Formats: sequence, C-alpha cells, structure tokens
Amino acid sequence: MSGELIFDFPTGPLDRYRKNATFNWKKLKIFLETERIIQFKDELYKEIKKYPILYSTPVTQTLNDIRHNTLKKMYTLLSIPSIQSFYAADVDESIAMATVLYSLDTSATIKMSVSVALFIATVLSMGTERHLSYVEDLLEKKILGCFCLTEIGHGTNARGMRTQATYDVNSKEFILHSPDFEAAKCWVGGLGQGATHAVVYAQLITPDGVHHGLHTFVVPIRDPNSMLPFPGIIVGDMGEKAGLNGVDNGFVIFNNYRIRRENLLNKNADVDESGQYISAIKDLNKMHGKSLGGLSSGRVNITHIAYIYLSKAITIAIRYAGVRKQFGPDDKEELPIIEYQLHQHRLLPYLAAAYHIKFLAEKLIKANTEAIQRKLKNLPANSDMDNEIHALSSASKPIAGWTARDGIQECREACGGHGYLKASGLGDLRNDNDANCTYEGENHVLIQQTSNWLLKFWPLILTRQNISSPLHSIDFFTNGLQILNTKFTATNVQQVIVPENIISIYQWLVCYLLKITYSKYEDNIKKGMDPFTAKNENQVFYSRSLAIAYIQHFSLNAMYDKIQEAPDQSIKNVLSKLLALYGLHSIDKQHVSVLYQGGYTSGDKPVNLIQNAILQLCAEIKGDAVSLVDVIALPDFLLNSVLGAADGQVYHHLQSSFYQSPHCMARPTWWKDMVDKSYAQAKL
Amino acid sequence: MSGELIFDFPTGPLDRYRKNATFNWKKLKIFLETERIIQFKDELYKEIKKYPILYSTPVTQTLNDIRHNTLKKMYTLLSIPSIQSFYAADVDESIAMATVLYSLDTSATIKMSVSVALFIATVLSMGTERHLSYVEDLLEKKILGCFCLTEIGHGTNARGMRTQATYDVNSKEFILHSPDFEAAKCWVGGLGQGATHAVVYAQLITPDGVHHGLHTFVVPIRDPNSMLPFPGIIVGDMGEKAGLNGVDNGFVIFNNYRIRRENLLNKNADVDESGQYISAIKDLNKMHGKSLGGLSSGRVNITHIAYIYLSKAITIAIRYAGVRKQFGPDDKEELPIIEYQLHQHRLLPYLAAAYHIKFLAEKLIKANTEAIQRKLKNLPANSDMDNEIHALSSASKPIAGWTARDGIQECREACGGHGYLKASGLGDLRNDNDANCTYEGENHVLIQQTSNWLLKFWPLILTRQNISSPLHSIDFFTNGLQILNTKFTATNVQQVIVPENIISIYQWLVCYLLKITYSKYEDNIKKGMDPFTAKNENQVFYSRSLAIAYIQHFSLNAMYDKIQEAPDQSIKNVLSKLLALYGLHSIDKQHVSVLYQGGYTSGDKPVNLIQNAILQLCAEIKGDAVSLVDVIALPDFLLNSVLGAADGQVYHHLQSSFYQSPHCMARPTWWKDMVDKSYAQAKL
Repeated sequence: MSGELIFDFPTGPLDRYRKNATFNWKKLKIFLETERIIQFKDELYKEIKKYPILYSTPVTQTLNDIRHNTLKKMYTLLSIPSIQSFYAADVDESIAMATVLYSLDTSATIKMSVSVALFIATVLSMGTERHLSYVEDLLEKKILGCFCLTEIGHGTNARGMRTQATYDVNSKEFILHSPDFEAAKCWVGGLGQGATHAVVYAQLITPDGVHHGLHTFVVPIRDPNSMLPFPGIIVGDMGEKAGLNGVDNGFVIFNNYRIRRENLLNKNADVDESGQYISAIKDLNKMHGKSLGGLSSGRVNITHIAYIYLSKAITIAIRYAGVRKQFGPDDKEELPIIEYQLHQHRLLPYLAAAYHIKFLAEKLIKANTEAIQRKLKNLPANSDMDNEIHALSSASKPIAGWTARDGIQECREACGGHGYLKASGLGDLRNDNDANCTYEGENHVLIQQTSNWLLKFWPLILTRQNISSPLHSIDFFTNGLQILNTKFTATNVQQVIVPENIISIYQWLVCYLLKITYSKYEDNIKKGMDPFTAKNENQVFYSRSLAIAYIQHFSLNAMYDKIQEAPDQSIKNVLSKLLALYGLHSIDKQHVSVLYQGGYTSGDKPVNLIQNAILQLCAEIKGDAVSLVDVIALPDFLLNSVLGAADGQVYHHLQSSFYQSPHCMARPTWWKDMVDKSYAQAKL
Repeated sequence: MSGELIFDFPTGPLDRYRKNATFNWKKLKIFLETERIIQFKDELYKEIKKYPILYSTPVTQTLNDIRHNTLKKMYTLLSIPSIQSFYAADVDESIAMATVLYSLDTSATIKMSVSVALFIATVLSMGTERHLSYVEDLLEKKILGCFCLTEIGHGTNARGMRTQATYDVNSKEFILHSPDFEAAKCWVGGLGQGATHAVVYAQLITPDGVHHGLHTFVVPIRDPNSMLPFPGIIVGDMGEKAGLNGVDNGFVIFNNYRIRRENLLNKNADVDESGQYISAIKDLNKMHGKSLGGLSSGRVNITHIAYIYLSKAITIAIRYAGVRKQFGPDDKEELPIIEYQLHQHRLLPYLAAAYHIKFLAEKLIKANTEAIQRKLKNLPANSDMDNEIHALSSASKPIAGWTARDGIQECREACGGHGYLKASGLGDLRNDNDANCTYEGENHVLIQQTSNWLLKFWPLILTRQNISSPLHSIDFFTNGLQILNTKFTATNVQQVIVPENIISIYQWLVCYLLKITYSKYEDNIKKGMDPFTAKNENQVFYSRSLAIAYIQHFSLNAMYDKIQEAPDQSIKNVLSKLLALYGLHSIDKQHVSVLYQGGYTSGDKPVNLIQNAILQLCAEIKGDAVSLVDVIALPDFLLNSVLGAADGQVYHHLQSSFYQSPHCMARPTWWKDMVDKSYAQAKL
C-alpha cells in the first residue's frame, strides 16, 4: 500500500543523498504520520488544487489587493466541506489539516481561525443557549466574528484592560465605553475590514458601581448587508505590518455604545434585569482565570505553527545545500555546501529541532484536545491537567517561536543571496513567524507562567515527596535531591550521545535551576523586596533558563518516547541522533554556564566532549539530512520555494521565476523618468 | 554655541529619565560628533526638507511603485550639490552624510552608491585615461552604471566566475559570453531596470587560448535614450526581495556580445591589438587580488550601515520602553517597562553594542579612506595596512551585521505587538539589514579571511617576536605567551567591570583561540587531511570564535581610546559602563565555554561574578539609557517610527498613524465580496 501512497521524487542532483540514506524514508514517514493521515492529506491536496485562487498568488500586491485576495481565499476554504468542519475533525486529521492550511496561506488560515473558529469556541465555552444563533449565523456565513481582548495600552497584562461595560437598568442594556484611545481594543484579527460581530472583553460594572472584572460580550460591529459600522463605534484598520498582511487587524473605540443585556456571555456570571450580579464564582482572580482560560489552545496551536514554518525553512535550506556547490579541495571539483562542517553545524541542529518541536506540538495538541473535550462534555475539571498544559504551553510557545525565528534566519543566511529573493519563501516565513513571538502572550512574559508554576514544587522536592503530573513533565522531581547530586560522568563521545545520558543532564539542569531560582527569590525577599520585585529581579539568569530547560527536557522525552516505538533499528538510530544533536546543541548554546556554576561539570573535558559529539553527530546526520527533510516536507505547491523544490533543479526554477515575473524584462512604464530627470529639481 | 546647536526635546513622558541622567547629553553629543559635523548635518536636514519626495513615502506600494519612487529619490539626491559630491567630501562629513542618507532611504542610497559611486571608483582604480569619459558622462547623469561580479552559481567564491571575455583579433573586440544560466551575472544593484553601463568581471581569454583570470570591462547595456537593452544581451530584473525593494537587482546573460578592446579596464593588464596579453603582474593569484581588492570599502561601509540600523532600532525600543507602562508591584501604579531587569537585559547590551560598532566603523572608515588616498596619490603601497584592513573589515562586517540582526529583532520583540506594525519601522530595518549578512561576502565565509590572517602570527608568538601592525590590532601578540599564562583573578564585581580587566580577558581569548585553532589545524593535517579540508574541519568552535573575539577586542579598544579623551568624568563613567556591558555580555553569550576549556576560569565564581556584573551594569545604565539614545538618535523625520519619536507621545503618534492611513476607516472597494460569496465555489 505504501508504494501507492508515497511516490519517489524525480531524479536529479539530490539523488546522491537520497540513494545513500541509512534509513527508508517512506517507512519513517508512515511511522510518523500513519497511512490514514497520508491519504487524508492527499485528498486535501486534490481538493485544494481544484480552486486556483488558493494557490496562485500574484508576486507583488498592494495591501488592498492582499486583503481582497485573502478574503476570497478564506471564503473559498470555508466552501470546501472537509475544511468547513475543521474544528470538529478528529485530532490527527485536525493536526494534518492545520499543517496543510498554514502552509498554503498563513493569513487566510489565521483569518479563518480567528473570525470563525475562535469566535465560535468562545461563544460556546462562555455563552449559553441564547447565544447559539450567532454560531449558526457564522456557520451559514451570514456574519463574521472577531475576538477583542488586547487594548492599545495593555496586551499581555490582560488584567489591565479598561474597556467598560456598565449595566443600565432603565434600558436593560450594557453601555460599552472606551475611556480613551489607550483603552481602544486593538490587534483584533479580522476586525479591520471584515468583522460584523465581536467577542469583547470588558470590565463589568453594575448599577451599584461595583466592578466585577473582565467579562465577555457579543457585540454587533457592522451591518452584515452593507458592511458599514454601526453608529457609536469608531472601527478601523491598523495598517500594514511586518508580516501576515492578509489579516486585517483592527481597532475599535466604543463611545457609550449600547448592547442588549443578553449579549453578555453568561455561562459563568450574569446580570439580571434589575442589575443584580449573579455568579457562582466569588473570587475575582478565579473569574479572570475563567474568562481567559481558553488561551492555552492558542499557545498550543502556535507551537505547531512555529513547527510548520521551521520545517518549511529547513526543507528549503537543506535541499539547496545538497545542490549548491561552492569551493572544493582542488580547483576542479566543487563540493555541495552541506559537505562543509560549518554548514552542517548551521543547519542540522535546526533539522533536529524541527523534529522535536513537531513531536512536542503534537503531544500538546492531543492533551489540550482531551482537556477541551472534557469541558465540552461537562466532565469534572482536571485542574492538575489544566495547570500542567498551561505551564507547558506557556513555555512551548516561546521556545518554538524563538527556535523557528533563529532557524528560519539561519536558513535564510545559509541560502546566501538567493535566500534573500522573495521567491525563496524564507523572508515571508521570517516575517510571519515573527508574530508568534508576541501574540497570545509576549514570549518573555509568558514564560514566567511556567517558572512560577515550577517553583511551587521545590518545597515538595525538599521534603522528598512523591511528585507526578498527568503529562509526567515533572515526575522526575520525586528524585530531585538525588538528581542534584549527580555529575557529568561521560568520558568519551559515545557516552555523551546516549539519549538517556542527555536526558539526565536536563533533569539535573531543571532541578538545579529550580533550586537556585527559588533560593535567589528567597534572598530577594530577605533583602526587603516585595514579591513582585523579588520575582522580577530573578528572571534573567534563573527563572527564564529554568522554564527553557524544563520544556526542552519535556521535548526530549517526547522524542525519546517516539523512538521507542520506531519500526526498525535504522530509524531508531537516526532519530536518536536527532535527539542527541538537539539536546547537546541546546546545552552548548544556552546552558554551559549553569553546568559549571552548579558544579555538574568541571575542567575542560565536558565541554570538549560535548562539542566533539556535536560535530560527530553533524557529520553522521549530514548524509541523511535530505531524506529527513523529505519525510517532513510538504509538496512543492505548498512549499512554494524556488530553492526547495523536491527535484533539486534549483537553477531551472530560479530562471523560470525570473523570466515569468511580469516586470522581468519589460521596460518600466515610467522609463522616461530615467531619461529626463527634470523632476529632480522640484522643491517646496 | 552648543545652546544654539542642539535643542532640548519637547517635554513629555520621557522627562523623568532625561532630567535624572548622570551626564550632560549635549556635551557627549558634541564630544562624539564635533560642532562642525552637527552643523553640517543640520544643513543637510534643511536641504532634504526642501524636497518632499525625499521624505514622504506612501505607506503601501507595489514593487513597481517602489522602484519608480526610488529612482526619483535617487535623482533628487543627486541634484543636491552637497550630496552629488558625496565621495569627494572629507571623511568626517562623508561619515555624517552616509548616516543621514542611509537613514533617509536605504534603497535610494544603495542604488546611488552602486550605480554611481561604486562604478566610478572601479573605473578610476582599474581603468586609465581612456575610460574617464564614462566618469564624466555619469557625473552629468547621461548614463547610469552598475557592478557585475556575482553569478547565479558563484558569489562569495569569486574565483569560480565563468563569464568569458575572448579577444577576437579580426574585429579587435572582446566577445563576452555566458556559457549557461548558472554563469549569468546576478544580484547586480541597479541593473534590473536602470543601468546603461556595467563594470563586468570576466575570465579573459587571449587568441592563443590562454586563460588570464578575472579582468574588468566596461560594457554598454542599454541605450541611454530609449532605455532599451542592446541586442545580444538578455537583461532583466530579479523580482521582489526580502528587503531593499527599491533597488532593482538584475541579471544579465551575454550571448557572444561584442565590446571594443578599449573597454578593458587596463590599469593592471592589457591586451594589445594583436592579442598579446601584457601585465606587470605575473601571478594569477595576485591578479585576482588586484581585481577584487576594492571590496574592503564595501565591508567597511556595511559595518557602518549596520550601526545605523541598530542605532535606529535601539532608539525606538528604548524610548518606547521609557514610556510604555505595564504591571507593577501593586495594582495601582504601573511601571515603565525599562524598569524591569529582564527588559534592561534585553535592550541595554544592544545599546552598548551600538556605541561600540559606531566607534569601530568610524575607525575603519578613516583607516580605509587613508589607504584609498594613498593609492589615488600613487604613494608606495602599504601592504601591512591593506592586509590589516582586509582582516578587520572581514570580521567587522559579520559582527556588525549579526549584532544589528539580533539587536533589531530583540527591539522588535521588546516593542511587543506595536513593534510589529510597519509604522514602528522595525520590520523594515530587519529586512534591510538582513542583506548585510550576505552581500559583499557571506558572513561565515568572509570571517575565515580574518582567522586565516591571524593564524600566520602564531609562529611569531611562539618565538617571542615583537609584533605590531599599523592599526595596532595585534600588538598584544608580542606578549602572547605571557597572556596565555594569565587567569581570571577578579574576586568582586567592582574588579570585573574595570575596562582594562575586560580587555585582558579578550586578549587571553584571542591568544588561546589562536593557539588552539592552530594546533587543531596541525592535528587535522597529521590525520592526513589536505589543507583545504583541515581548515574547514576547524571552523565551528575554533576559527570562527577566534575571528569574533579578535574583532570584539579591537572594538573594545576603540571604545577605550575614545573614553580616554572624554571631556568630563561623568561621560567617562557612563561610556566605561557601556564598554563593560558590551564586553561582559559578549563573554556571557559566546565565550564562557572557551574560558573553561582553556583553564582561564574554574569553579562557579567567575560566571557568577560576570553575570552579577551584567545585572548591576544594566541597573546602573538604565536611568541613562534615554539620554544615551538621545545622543545618537536621528531627528524624528529620519527615525520615522510611531514608537520612537523624541517627544515620547507614543499613543498620539499611534492614533495619528492609524487614522491617517488611507484605508483606515473606509469600506474597501471590494466590500460586496464580503456579502455575496458566490465566487468561493469557482473550481477549475
């Protein structure tokens, strides 16, 4: 069956690597994806190819054209039955579909995701029966939603939001009001030009003057028939961005704008006609938690999106490195640049990282889906699970976003000048991924959620308690004190690259960073700092490194678990090398100081061994790199790069790309301005 | 006089920092720039403001519009007398003008620089009297030049170029030919749409079939009156790029295209009418060196351009950080985000780096200008000086490009969501700077020139010879063996931050890395590797780190020398802190492993001290940061960022930027496609 499922690539300059790979790439692909999902994606490709608008984008467009094009793409996607039911598919298909759609068009998919999926998810999780009509209207494409949380003056600090919703007993309406421009809702995807309805977070105030904290409302924004905004609203577009320009991010200012009482999403709290506030949740903090709790999904999804971007970039750069020849030991034969140690060291750690983030994202998506299902089925809450997902996703989103950022940039540079062409695809990947480092929680602020959660466990470690969590990310804390007594013991490279040994180093790193972060915090308190300041003065070398080492350890374990199920020894071997390279490269880049500070290593040998191991792994993986990207690569029409096509015919694709551009050889319409330059004197 | 020269900034939210700075920012500005140059720049600002086209760029444009706009800007700049004489000004004014022009419009300035300045410089340095008419025509704007070196298949490896120039005795012409598409000249700035003439590097072949290596020719490309290319040439545009889209990078394929014999730039070699090759330089390697020798200027200039980008980014991010308030110790008062240790640690090292790269670039520009003057005056060659400038610029361009890359990205993220707006300016800075990491020599390949040069000195160190160089970058090698015996001796933070002590650490780093790189290379040779392979297998942890530490040491010294001339103690203090922060932060980020590998440090104390020193420096510099960027900041109309204006009125500028955008609140022309979605069914 696999013979029919996965076709060989066309022969070409990459054959030399494909023929000599140490493993069967089709077998690895089936192991990672399953035949069912490979087939599911193939069907999706076929479906997409029926709609030319989805994959034929003009090279150069104005912002206005990009927006128009994205809108049409979004509605075209929504008209495909298998895609319209996106958020209802099973989790494996859902991951596969996200991979395909985010590869196809990031802006259209994000627009669809925030205008449709996020709006529906919020209404369903925060609203009640009386709000179901919005969901129905959206599914019938009568309206378009959006999600208004961030304000001009406050983003990641969600509690600082200042939009007010004051209940008016006389009219039985809420009066939405933005006190000033800094309280304008902004960065709202889909609001700039398209949304007819918004979910709006605002501070609920009852007639008695009491502030009840952030609550959510469904707010009509534009008339769906004329697309004109309703009076009392100033709504507009935020203009061009560094990337994702198909998404119309908007802002809105409410000027004593009235909405019906029933538009409060009242699952957790309500205001009755007389203005009485009714809620089962008494604690304002908990109320905040409830109203913002849905944000884990966003972070988990961004982890996955970052993987998609990184996998595209590394596919492009490695295929190009297998084709592009430069220099050589004598003046006769040049070598493909992947043969150079330096080039291997630039790219292969990011290939290893891509595999890790793939497994990390999939594991978290599955756990998060389970948690959401539990809520939708009204099963009793599993707050341990929710908290662990919160901690994991608050670190996985930063580490994935940053790794993709650095990896895409390295790929761009590793492709040299041609990597700077828009047609390489790398610039757009960088600009689109850039948003991942900020939205759904600024990375540096977000990651503190993880370290804060971890710090709670130190007293349990100290008292040698049994520690375990639903996703097992901290089970090793049970042995925390023993782990802290371990040292670096490897005496040769072979020992250093053993996966279990690398995971042990990370266990020590997490435990040590936990210990030292905790004690620095205590020291700060003793110095007289308030807890807020004590925590902030603790970030740079402690809390942040703790959260990073923790998520890396979790990610290494996800890879390790996968390896145990590998279908044959050759696949086990190559995946183990990727695990080792990712683990050791991250130590070399980020954690060497800590190893010496904590006394885990001493002398010159540990670093020498780690560095030699990295170079050895690079040399060993190099020959398999093309096949390893073949496994995770998207079809050419989705990869969409002149440098990364599966056939390796880089120079043919480059030439076509130049020649087919509409302006390539035509004299510009304004050519006379190159001859007569009298305009250049025009002064004020 | 300074009272008239430098005006106070408007009062606003940044006052709290400006009022409490520990030094007089106007005094520092005059110290760094001199009153003459401040005045010179002011004149230039006034001149530029007379031409609206120079500073009023539409927000969103097609590639075609961007190109047209850039062309008009270039010719407008060339019509300003003080700018037209750009390359003839004295060196201080030349640096000042470059700063202003690259800040004003990178694409127009690069286009001007390659189409005019680089063409003229090449013709003057490689040609003879018979080529002066090209220079005259160019200065009279009758023609437009460009510089064709890179080919599709070869860039940084210039010797691999395959364009041929075969002399034909019968017609007394050279026949230019591109054997295939991979030999097409490409990445030629200004060639895509505008150039009428090109300097072309090609392999010269005489009628006897002998290949004489790369030579340069002036080649007519387009008819200056019709702007149509001549027959026998396929010339076109490479299309959209990741940045610098105003520059029309082009490619050209020669199809047995004939040019006159006299079009050979014949300063170093010539072919007589009968086809005899005549050259004073017999060695092919030296001939290559001669024909490519002019590239140092490009690298020195890019060092400076990277500084300009970084200084813009850090100005924006620090001013915004002084205004933007988030969170706080209690729920009442929020703190400006620059008050947070984490934020200080994200930004301040790049502020320190900006100052260092500024001094580094200026020092190299001055040395390089001196070297060029010497050549123009036909003074005897100073090859020691040329080689040192080559080694320094081959490392300064990478370190500056990479530091700007990382710094701009950190600034983008540190400005949160609003940093993702095009109006913040940060995305464009990133995309434009990105090219700096590739053109004029791919950074990783380029930096090997530096390490190769340094390696020559190890045998001299070993034999305790007196070592000195014109720019003194390696004078400390004289004490190399003693330096290798030094250890980290500081026992408290106060000792760690002493500039001399930090420079000592770098001296040890360079000497140790030189020693270990040399010995690894020897080991590789002993293992049977050829020299080419032995060098390549030596890059990752050795050669590359060596070149980086070397240029950092030089840069720290440039700063140190500047500090000695400081006009008062408060300025000395704050500059010393910047020196210490840059030096220690770079150690912490890049060199800790080496310190332990080489036995310079042991135990946990050194790292603890270095990290504590970094945090202390951040805390101390924080209050001065706004004034430190005020010193290097450009006027608002050049900084051109809604987040970075000198008045600190971020939210007013943001609001204006939204409202003034043409599409902000207008319903899109295609609004009906949001109501009637029937197009979404259109299948193939």
